[in-house]
Amino acid sequence: MHNSQMIAWKESTVRPSQYVHSFFHSHQAFEVVMVTEGAVRVHFSGRSYDACPGDILVFGSMESHVFEITDFPYSRTGIRFSREALRRTIQNPALSAIYIKHAPDFCHLLPVPREAEEPRRLLEEIQGQFRQKAPFYLENMLYLLGQFTVSLYRCCPACFPVVSASGHQSVYEVLEYLESHYAENIHVEELARHFYMSSSHLAHTFRDLTGHTPRQYLTLCRLSRARELLAATDLPLEDVAARCGFDLAGTLIRSFKKEYNITPGAFRKSVSAQQSIFENGLDIPVPDVMDTFHVPIS
Amino acid sequence: MHNSQMIAWKESTVRPSQYVHSFFHSHQAFEVVMVTEGAVRVHFSGRSYDACPGDILVFGSMESHVFEITDFPYSRTGIRFSREALRRTIQNPALSAIYIKHAPDFCHLLPVPREAEEPRRLLEEIQGQFRQKAPFYLENMLYLLGQFTVSLYRCCPACFPVVSASGHQSVYEVLEYLESHYAENIHVEELARHFYMSSSHLAHTFRDLTGHTPRQYLTLCRLSRARELLAATDLPLEDVAARCGFDLAGTLIRSFKKEYNITPGAFRKSVSAQQSIFENGLDIPVPDVMDTFHVPIS
Repeated sequence: MHNSQMIAWKESTVRPSQYVHSFFHSHQAFEVVMVTEGAVRVHFSGRSYDACPGDILVFGSMESHVFEITDFPYSRTGIRFSREALRRTIQNPALSAIYIKHAPDFCHLLPVPREAEEPRRLLEEIQGQFRQKAPFYLENMLYLLGQFTVSLYRCCPACFPVVSASGHQSVYEVLEYLESHYAENIHVEELARHFYMSSSHLAHTFRDLTGHTPRQYLTLCRLSRARELLAATDLPLEDVAARCGFDLAGTLIRSFKKEYNITPGAFRKSVSAQQSIFENGLDIPVPDVMDTFHVPIS
Repeated sequence: MHNSQMIAWKESTVRPSQYVHSFFHSHQAFEVVMVTEGAVRVHFSGRSYDACPGDILVFGSMESHVFEITDFPYSRTGIRFSREALRRTIQNPALSAIYIKHAPDFCHLLPVPREAEEPRRLLEEIQGQFRQKAPFYLENMLYLLGQFTVSLYRCCPACFPVVSASGHQSVYEVLEYLESHYAENIHVEELARHFYMSSSHLAHTFRDLTGHTPRQYLTLCRLSRARELLAATDLPLEDVAARCGFDLAGTLIRSFKKEYNITPGAFRKSVSAQQSIFENGLDIPVPDVMDTFHVPIS
């Protein structure tokens, strides 16, 4: 996915399956999914959400989650967009917070009232723009994403994380720095100096915007990359750890287990043991967005 | 008007009048007007356009024009937005060209086909957002402006001035520099040096983006400010000239006459002689946007 890009897709299935939803790419991306038929249980970090038609869920790419389809036929529509697309389109941090600031207690299933048609209509319109590919359809998808976000705010303002007004620009820069330099040996103190901030100011504004400390976010970047390498390569754990910025394989193993409740080795086995089917929706360009379907783990 | 701002209005009249449409403010602003009832003849720089319901016109703030209402009852709807709002919202220069690049032969009355509903619907929706003032209505107006512009492109691509792909960011900076430093003694060579460009490269890309040379654009900025001062103050011509960056009153007089076909003195007399009525549409905040209605000049 190009930095400025946004894609949309629609898909449906009639066979029972688990859909492991994790993005394997090196840029941060965001995803909005709306269930349009059937039902699904979404597992995320020890919690689960039950979603039925009309329900809208929001995830960041570091938030890998599992879609367990519970009622058939099942279908959903979705959009995915890069951090750069988000930053260019939604400049008001009070609005972008719904995508960026996911504190541990953030509810990914948004409480959009049943009768609110606007956000659902706009998601379908984004879909339509992507399918028709008329001139400047990408620009239009982004404008519609902006409107979609405003419409979400208007029907459920309480689900938007509160952010304070200042210092966001520099935090965005720090976010991007971490997302591209995670493999290096980064110290928060140096990071703060690099961006002309005090460590405490950086920690405060970073947490205000993202819900994480810079250190936690750095670990998420590293783990996200580790998942990619574990799934796509046969590299020994030591090499995976080194390429992701972990000093030792043991550190990777401990962090991985803590975050995903599974060891890197078990994760790799489960991925390779299962039949991987690449997502193949409506002409989605999937250069570095790779999703996998999994048969139920018995 | 705040730099990031956008306003919308609707107005109607049943009495014959000439509507001198000139913005008296120091930031560059853009305007889109749609005739909704009656008919109007729009005079601009020696040319005129006849517009009837559904017709859409586009002007920049330096392009002062006169609306001569030719059929009653007359009404129109419009939007006005700052350069900053434009730059933040429409980042693709191929799209923003319709507002920015007005070469001398640019046709301000856009050939939008009668049957094209989308641009007209979007203008009305911007209006509705401005009237309702729901949360983030300004953001939504800007997203709708983006969609409106895409919809214009889709129904009349040929009316979009062609711009080449590179060097726009620095030209935007030069534009803003000229708009805020016009009162100073500016040499194009120094200007180019200031922005790390050669004079010829600056001239070329500036003209590509705006349709003017930097020198012409600087003069337009100065004349626009001169109109403000002539209309709003009793300052002697020498002072007006000095405050606008003209070296001598004579230079101001010559440039003014050439651009507007009237001397500064005659312009001032015509403004003060006429009954000035501030535009007072639907709760428009008019801090530094001042429009005047004029009775017909006999």
